[in-house]
Amino acid sequence: MATVKFVENPPSPAEDAEQLRKAFVGWGTNEKLIISILAHRSAAHRRLIRQAYAEAYGEDLLVSLDKEISGDFERVVLLWALNPAERDALLANEAARRWNPSNKVLIEIACARSSGQLFAARQAYHARYHKSLEEDVAAHTTGDFRKLLVPLVSVFRYEGEVVNATLAKSEAKILHKKITEKAYSDEELIRIITTRSKAQLNATFNHYHNEFGHPISKDLKSDPKDDFIAALRATIRCITCPEKYFEKVIRLAINKLGTDEGALTRVVTTRAEIDMKNIGEIYLKRNSVPLDRAVDNDTSGDYQSMLLALLGREDA
Amino acid sequence: MATVKFVENPPSPAEDAEQLRKAFVGWGTNEKLIISILAHRSAAHRRLIRQAYAEAYGEDLLVSLDKEISGDFERVVLLWALNPAERDALLANEAARRWNPSNKVLIEIACARSSGQLFAARQAYHARYHKSLEEDVAAHTTGDFRKLLVPLVSVFRYEGEVVNATLAKSEAKILHKKITEKAYSDEELIRIITTRSKAQLNATFNHYHNEFGHPISKDLKSDPKDDFIAALRATIRCITCPEKYFEKVIRLAINKLGTDEGALTRVVTTRAEIDMKNIGEIYLKRNSVPLDRAVDNDTSGDYQSMLLALLGREDA
Repeated sequence: MATVKFVENPPSPAEDAEQLRKAFVGWGTNEKLIISILAHRSAAHRRLIRQAYAEAYGEDLLVSLDKEISGDFERVVLLWALNPAERDALLANEAARRWNPSNKVLIEIACARSSGQLFAARQAYHARYHKSLEEDVAAHTTGDFRKLLVPLVSVFRYEGEVVNATLAKSEAKILHKKITEKAYSDEELIRIITTRSKAQLNATFNHYHNEFGHPISKDLKSDPKDDFIAALRATIRCITCPEKYFEKVIRLAINKLGTDEGALTRVVTTRAEIDMKNIGEIYLKRNSVPLDRAVDNDTSGDYQSMLLALLGREDA
Repeated sequence: MATVKFVENPPSPAEDAEQLRKAFVGWGTNEKLIISILAHRSAAHRRLIRQAYAEAYGEDLLVSLDKEISGDFERVVLLWALNPAERDALLANEAARRWNPSNKVLIEIACARSSGQLFAARQAYHARYHKSLEEDVAAHTTGDFRKLLVPLVSVFRYEGEVVNATLAKSEAKILHKKITEKAYSDEELIRIITTRSKAQLNATFNHYHNEFGHPISKDLKSDPKDDFIAALRATIRCITCPEKYFEKVIRLAINKLGTDEGALTRVVTTRAEIDMKNIGEIYLKRNSVPLDRAVDNDTSGDYQSMLLALLGREDA
């Protein structure tokens, strides 16, 4: 469930665009007004505001925002203002161009989205970058990571509930054998994880747990410093329990010496309309602090206000 | 350009469905009537006929056809009756399940279609087989072929005309180096061919030809019996000159001792609405016989009549 709260019967997109324009012109920018509008409109409505704004003022709303605001506040507002497919395309492009082995953003976009959402991001990628996502990922990665990431961002997984139990058993055995042999980048292991449907993989991982006594993600903790094993674990967690995965990303972002604003902003903007409420519940259980209070303590200013609004705090 | 000729102002789908039903009932089947209707209706109209037929008679038209006709005639009528995405899904499924190294059907579907058409085939694959195309291809292939075919069927290539000339030069060099070293299944070679846009690859292959004195497809003829090299060549030809590729498939199908009806039927049904006219022109130039005459000489009966109708012969 979402955290962000949309006003019922919002003003027309044209009125919202006009208010935003007012927030930009004159001496100083009215950040409160920007937050009060954008943080309380759905993705569909935000898209209409951008259209209305471009028609009325001959400039993309995102360009105006870029001129008026800056820093972490700018980042959270810009990511939020994009529609989900464009946002994913932008995040994936940044991750591919500045790729490093510990970066999990491509895995999130490939595995914690529906097949249709991933495909929409690939379409948005064409429109925005005049290239395909997979060609950029393939060109910027090497070795085992390329073997894993290129199929992950290219797959169009079947989404029905049909599961083949015999296959789940035989593929659980293959996975166990490869992990036992520490053959983490084995072709068969990668084939199974990058092509099977999420329902089929859940059945396979359940069988793995039953048959071999440990969850597969636990068996992938042998070497916590190995980035490739960590990438495999992130893949499996984004497929089987994205909410737990995102709770951990937020927890590490907040607990860091100096908050990791990049990660915090990414998770809040990509999940606020999806499952942020569940992520918050898991966060509270795990940390004994409500997520909004943790964010409140760890951030400040307009950035803080925008995050809290997206997290659904009543007064934000 | 297409060869197949559609009647202007065709009868309503319901009338066509009724006529087809008449062709099935009673003593014997009226094959001429089936051909006269189906071979002269567009894909969109054929889809409406199927809907109208199912509504009126409670049975899928394809099931009725399967009961009434058989052999090569059945195959050509059934493939033609399907809409293009479903037809590609069916052909790809057969090719994946009965895959062998000399089978080029997956390459045709992956490379001689637009990005949108390949994606539509992948969607149709989900609906029909409750699995993804890429998971079946990955599960039924091994080794170098898997390394090539899985990305080929998964890619969503950028389709704009934007070309990076510097990249074309550097990647032409990589391709030439790998081919000279006979490293045909090299990761970089496969990456380039399976992810770059068709416009970019054309620029790369042009540069290859200019810089190294031979077209790349010629440099891939070193060992004509090697199925993997043949697969690479087919991939490049389906990307750069699908019409020439299909002319050759038809030529070999007809020149065989005993026609290869499978290949002939596949090419005619998949290209009649697209570029069969151009394929026929290349055929005439290469063989000094018009394609329809060659097909006329090599086939017989209702199968022959259906093929000739799809090839646009006036009296068919």
